[in-house]
Amino acid sequence: MDPNALAKAFVEHYYTTFDTNRPGLANLYQDGSMLTFEGQQFQGAQNIAAKLASLPFQQCQHSITTVDCQPSGPAGGMLVFVSGNLQLAGEQHALKFSQVSLFKHVLRSCVLD
Amino acid sequence: MDPNALAKAFVEHYYTTFDTNRPGLANLYQDGSMLTFEGQQFQGAQNIAAKLASLPFQQCQHSITTVDCQPSGPAGGMLVFVSGNLQLAGEQHALKFSQVSLFKHVLRSCVLD
Repeated sequence: MDPNALAKAFVEHYYTTFDTNRPGLANLYQDGSMLTFEGQQFQGAQNIAAKLASLPFQQCQHSITTVDCQPSGPAGGMLVFVSGNLQLAGEQHALKFSQVSLFKHVLRSCVLD
Repeated sequence: MDPNALAKAFVEHYYTTFDTNRPGLANLYQDGSMLTFEGQQFQGAQNIAAKLASLPFQQCQHSITTVDCQPSGPAGGMLVFVSGNLQLAGEQHALKFSQVSLFKHVLRSCVLD
């Protein structure tokens, strides 16, 4: 499968999981993964999932506007930059968001670095 | 030097160079570097510099709002996410921008992947 297509499928899967089953995001990270969220850093799948679970909203819907992918390193890695809108339940205006994911081995498995 | 501080110093240097001596950006990339710019990909320092030189504005000023850094891999790499405003000469309103840089070996040298 084309790495770009695989990365885009993963982006779709990630945000669908975020919107419908946020605890399930823990499965997409490893112990060596790190999340930087608005300047704060969280290490490891459980800490990352706990941070995402603690966000001050329950229902949300991500709409993806752009997905830029480029290869990273000789081991089949991929750098993915996503931008889009985040609609929270009960809010009139969507928030803009952007997120970067660095996959170590996108051709072997989809886990986030 | 703290890798975060080094990455932030590099960000400062990158955008100062962009605003005052755009052709000098070529020195900050390698032949193996890639730039993805609004979905288009450019490989190698010369192609990247040519793309940046071809942007449809001459005078500009970047103002950095956030710099998020996190370590990437065992070789001293660093993933840096920058957001901010881009003021173009003659324009009333600044543009929002964001850019991601992946440094292979931030502790050894500052070159962009």
